[in-house]
Amino acid sequence: MLTQTLKGFRDFLPKEAKKRQYVIETLKKVFESYGFEPLETPALEYEEILTGKYGEEGDKLMYKFTDNGGRKVALRYDQTVPLARVIAQYGDALPMPFKRYQIQNVWRAENTQKGRYREFLQVDADIVGSPSPLSDAEIIALAVKSLEKLGFKNYKILINDRSLLDSIPKSAISAIDKLKKIGKDGVLKELINKGIPKEKAQLILSEIEKKKPTERINNILSYITPIGVKPLKCEFLPTLARGLDYYTSTIFEIEIDGYSAGSVCGGGRYDNLIGIFAGKQIPAVGFAFGFDRLIEAMEELDLFPKDLNTSNVLVTVFNNELLDKSIEAAEKLRKNGINSELFLDPEQKMEKQLKYADTKGVPYVVIIGPDEAKNNTVTIRNMQTREQKTIEIEKLPDEFKK
Amino acid sequence: MLTQTLKGFRDFLPKEAKKRQYVIETLKKVFESYGFEPLETPALEYEEILTGKYGEEGDKLMYKFTDNGGRKVALRYDQTVPLARVIAQYGDALPMPFKRYQIQNVWRAENTQKGRYREFLQVDADIVGSPSPLSDAEIIALAVKSLEKLGFKNYKILINDRSLLDSIPKSAISAIDKLKKIGKDGVLKELINKGIPKEKAQLILSEIEKKKPTERINNILSYITPIGVKPLKCEFLPTLARGLDYYTSTIFEIEIDGYSAGSVCGGGRYDNLIGIFAGKQIPAVGFAFGFDRLIEAMEELDLFPKDLNTSNVLVTVFNNELLDKSIEAAEKLRKNGINSELFLDPEQKMEKQLKYADTKGVPYVVIIGPDEAKNNTVTIRNMQTREQKTIEIEKLPDEFKK
Repeated sequence: MLTQTLKGFRDFLPKEAKKRQYVIETLKKVFESYGFEPLETPALEYEEILTGKYGEEGDKLMYKFTDNGGRKVALRYDQTVPLARVIAQYGDALPMPFKRYQIQNVWRAENTQKGRYREFLQVDADIVGSPSPLSDAEIIALAVKSLEKLGFKNYKILINDRSLLDSIPKSAISAIDKLKKIGKDGVLKELINKGIPKEKAQLILSEIEKKKPTERINNILSYITPIGVKPLKCEFLPTLARGLDYYTSTIFEIEIDGYSAGSVCGGGRYDNLIGIFAGKQIPAVGFAFGFDRLIEAMEELDLFPKDLNTSNVLVTVFNNELLDKSIEAAEKLRKNGINSELFLDPEQKMEKQLKYADTKGVPYVVIIGPDEAKNNTVTIRNMQTREQKTIEIEKLPDEFKK
Repeated sequence: MLTQTLKGFRDFLPKEAKKRQYVIETLKKVFESYGFEPLETPALEYEEILTGKYGEEGDKLMYKFTDNGGRKVALRYDQTVPLARVIAQYGDALPMPFKRYQIQNVWRAENTQKGRYREFLQVDADIVGSPSPLSDAEIIALAVKSLEKLGFKNYKILINDRSLLDSIPKSAISAIDKLKKIGKDGVLKELINKGIPKEKAQLILSEIEKKKPTERINNILSYITPIGVKPLKCEFLPTLARGLDYYTSTIFEIEIDGYSAGSVCGGGRYDNLIGIFAGKQIPAVGFAFGFDRLIEAMEELDLFPKDLNTSNVLVTVFNNELLDKSIEAAEKLRKNGINSELFLDPEQKMEKQLKYADTKGVPYVVIIGPDEAKNNTVTIRNMQTREQKTIEIEKLPDEFKK
């Protein structure tokens, strides 16, 4: 029988799933420390709520179908359009500004050859209803604090005001955005390839490089230091454009030193999108983490804690007669707040039980054989050093509380 | 523009989302304390992996469609068939017994008039690869400890061995299962309605009531007390059948006293299902919580903590000149581990800022006006009692650490 996942879809076995949970839980804690609250929206929405909001490309990549009741439905494509629907639907019941985070999967029928996935987790935090640059500053600070909490120490925040690009022909923007990556010559070449005469291209580029921060950007930069973001980490980059059309002023990206696959976080102010369902302008600012990139960067920089294993202790079972002793020991450990599991197959040889601890990455094993049972002791084996020691059963929890 | 969710699909606004998170996090901690580890599988699977596994009814309620690449796909319908696929796909890479929990949404095109949802969270914990009754006992203990951790004190575990029903005609089983609910007369009536002669029906019923626990059930009951489940909570109920055909021996349900909508947890041993993809018998035992029922029961019994609010403190902003002081205070609180948020719109009147705290359920508000700024103090307002007091700014974190 077929046993495979669809292209672009992934299983997360325990080892990976625990890493993901660690990142999610860490981010949630930081988000909540700033008063951001969770929001969940359905995986399926009426198709008409989603279509036309993500451009032609989006409509093409969307998972759409007709349900059993003949309704045209589509799978969540991002978390911003659902947020806009929620704002229109519940309006006055929500506190304003509405600060929410949302951590759910989205689905896009991407070309998987580019290393993209068709199901991936999005991590969004947004502030809806506040036009103040203070909100922009808090969003940037929140992203920075999140990264620091995950262990990233060296990073750079690139910031710009999208309105500075208003005078640039739309077709030129994506080329200019690449300045940091491909250099001046590269950008010029791309602009010329797009049919812009060389002189005009040079003019566009030199003009944009001369731009000064807007009042909003200066305000943000002045707020951001008291909130705890080191000013040296911030760089005003007038060529930064970001792909999405919907940004209206502030835009920013965060790059991690030593991780080259791209920025791990991006966001900005988008004052015209959230109101589309409500039929009025509603200011908003927010960011998204690239969750898969975060995981990859943490992997590369070795930032995951070493003790993400679920169980601290495996209590083995010597034989059926001594099972009660083992049950008791495991229960005693758990009562003292130590994650510990009992080996569940008393018929298995000790060797197999130790191998189980190895496969699962359980660092300590407790053995209660006839001698231990007689003397009210237990033997503790350190799975890494293979050292063993025998202690009184009463002292077992203390051994792991240290 | 349309702003509504599909029938049977729900948004969870922050207040509800936080309750859900609280339950999920509590359950995860208990699961992990027993060595159960998280597994995630994709929302979409090849249709052929899912079809034919849930009976005719299941195939009808499944969300199926053809994707852009012409593949026939279906949305996750439960978490057991994906588990069976995972076991076959990764086999030897997994520790055995494989103890996993899985907490993801499933989708079923149910008749919503019965108060059923089309997208709902499933909470499953299973042990794959161990035939031992010790595993059955641990699964039941795990369910019980989870409920106790959530605050449920009075509950009843109903337990039976499905094999005791082997001699009963299949058509009679669902009627017999209702004995506790509709009484003897009710069951007899239903059996007769199904075309079973009255005498035969009486015989079936009296026979089943005389059944004694099997050796497996006795073993489970003997293990379960040392694991910490009070024996009085367990009732052997030979008429318990549970709906699903796939159970092979142990079955159990847990009912909460004072919550009448039905059992909140059910499970059992199913030794023939997990191996269908691997082409061999693989023993397994597990349970599922009815997540929506859990939430409802906790609501009814008032078991949610009162302090699920995200922020402990709202730091208001008196005016733009005093903004720095407020930023500083909020940051100081956060640095001391106190969730606190800054009001993000310095132009708003104090009254509106207090209303925001009220809407969001933030219990304390900090005010720094000109007097406070001059004297290096802050005023703290208790939003419930409306009491205010002014303290030195240095002492602010201590005020909330208590």
